[in-house]
Amino acid sequence: MSQQLAEEERSQRSAGGSRTAADIITHHQRALEEALARALPPRDLAPARLHAAMWDAVFPGGRRARPLLCLLVAERYGQGDDELVMRMAMAVELVHCASLVQDDMPCFDDADTRRGRPAIHKVYGDATAILVGDALLTLAFEVLAQAPARRATTAFRLFGLLGSAAGSSQGIIGGQGLELEPSVDLDAYHRQKTAALFRAAAAGAAVCCGAEGDVARWARVGELLGCALQLRDDIDDVEATPEAVGKPIGRDAALGRPNAALQDGVGSARALRQALIDGVAELLGAPTPETEALRLVVDEATRPAVRR
Amino acid sequence: MSQQLAEEERSQRSAGGSRTAADIITHHQRALEEALARALPPRDLAPARLHAAMWDAVFPGGRRARPLLCLLVAERYGQGDDELVMRMAMAVELVHCASLVQDDMPCFDDADTRRGRPAIHKVYGDATAILVGDALLTLAFEVLAQAPARRATTAFRLFGLLGSAAGSSQGIIGGQGLELEPSVDLDAYHRQKTAALFRAAAAGAAVCCGAEGDVARWARVGELLGCALQLRDDIDDVEATPEAVGKPIGRDAALGRPNAALQDGVGSARALRQALIDGVAELLGAPTPETEALRLVVDEATRPAVRR
Repeated sequence: MSQQLAEEERSQRSAGGSRTAADIITHHQRALEEALARALPPRDLAPARLHAAMWDAVFPGGRRARPLLCLLVAERYGQGDDELVMRMAMAVELVHCASLVQDDMPCFDDADTRRGRPAIHKVYGDATAILVGDALLTLAFEVLAQAPARRATTAFRLFGLLGSAAGSSQGIIGGQGLELEPSVDLDAYHRQKTAALFRAAAAGAAVCCGAEGDVARWARVGELLGCALQLRDDIDDVEATPEAVGKPIGRDAALGRPNAALQDGVGSARALRQALIDGVAELLGAPTPETEALRLVVDEATRPAVRR
Repeated sequence: MSQQLAEEERSQRSAGGSRTAADIITHHQRALEEALARALPPRDLAPARLHAAMWDAVFPGGRRARPLLCLLVAERYGQGDDELVMRMAMAVELVHCASLVQDDMPCFDDADTRRGRPAIHKVYGDATAILVGDALLTLAFEVLAQAPARRATTAFRLFGLLGSAAGSSQGIIGGQGLELEPSVDLDAYHRQKTAALFRAAAAGAAVCCGAEGDVARWARVGELLGCALQLRDDIDDVEATPEAVGKPIGRDAALGRPNAALQDGVGSARALRQALIDGVAELLGAPTPETEALRLVVDEATRPAVRR
């Protein structure tokens, strides 16, 4: 967002103007989209095919739940417009977008559509799709490396959080690797495949804000939210329609992928999802517009397509 | 290497013991292999298939020219055993190993062998091979993020160097992307595909050693060496045997890939390679065991399989 807009908002707040939760979310959504567009290499810069595909992998986005979590946690500390927080928010979103491109490839989920549009590998081919994954993953780290030099010490800690959340031992790449194992612990799988990035997003925001004592609590919020979102995905894969979710359904059953709704039943998955969301609500604390904004994001990100 | 061994070597040097260039190289080769083995996740840690494949992508290595360049530049400043230098050396090698796994895949060079052994995708399949690329790329950044916290400011700069050297705009991923473009500038392609990591390796060492005034010179050494090595590869692809190089040859012609020896002739490529190596020699300066070690690494890394 522009400096001027930020100033206006700050003065509105200090003058007692009541920003609603929806205002807060809209503000951060807009700032995030602008920042992502600035971070991507120009579409026509060589290699132009790769760069065009990177744009298509990032825009239009989905719910942007991971970066919004990051920005809204920082908002709780009055630092939602901090540059380093935005960089961490972008970094987790870029890793997420990289993972989606790869998930859709023929040797993974073999999905032809994503967010209602053709998947990257369908438009650009497998080779470019693989490179888009690599390039967005690398860009995530580059975005952190371009932080102001005076924040080097804090950025250094963010690299550690992002690296673990992405990597093979504890992160999303390891989660994708678990799908290829003969048997897998469903909870560990959900924590790596989905919750790791949410953890890093929330914990990273607290680190940026110097809220050392709260880092573990926010990491827990991220983990619960991430696991609830994965349960939503599992439920949708069993009972939603492709139109409602913008991608093929029934893939987990077809490919023998771990799925909580398949393993334990949709009812059980719904109950567990609700318990996780209740856990988040408990951790969020006192009701303020900022807390309410977080609650809205959690709700939006974890609601199954089929209402009950 | 062990603390004790390092002490022994230091005392040997200070006592006037004459380390040869070969001693210096052997010392760093051994230290590097040990450090890489410590950095990789245990082979049997879940996801075990992915982790086993990561080990097979890193061991046994090739010439390890990139990390040796990094370590030997630091050696010129008496800091070849600095932990942060080793982390930078490992990081560039991990990115390189990631790129090789991907280069061999069916949708890229479609090569069945690498270093005389079956390629990763032949042993583990395409899905695991893609994840190995992601995981080694991420591990490169994680290795830097695990540097001692007191080196955070310097490590922060290394993240920037590594990110550019890997990324789509100036780095190796962009170089792979250029292969998929309808036409490409050969020099720009060589600089991204191969020289970028050498630049980062040499410049990163100077940054670690606090040799700010020399960073540009070492970056140039890395660039010249990287381009000379790529010319060696281009020449080998035209006139070597698969046995001599441990991988298929003639791939560039078969796949329509940019190749200097195909485009301008083997004689021209050999002459250019020699000019680049002469440029490196000029930049290396006064002959010492450390300079001689660098010269040996350059020679070994850039010598075509077919002698003339």
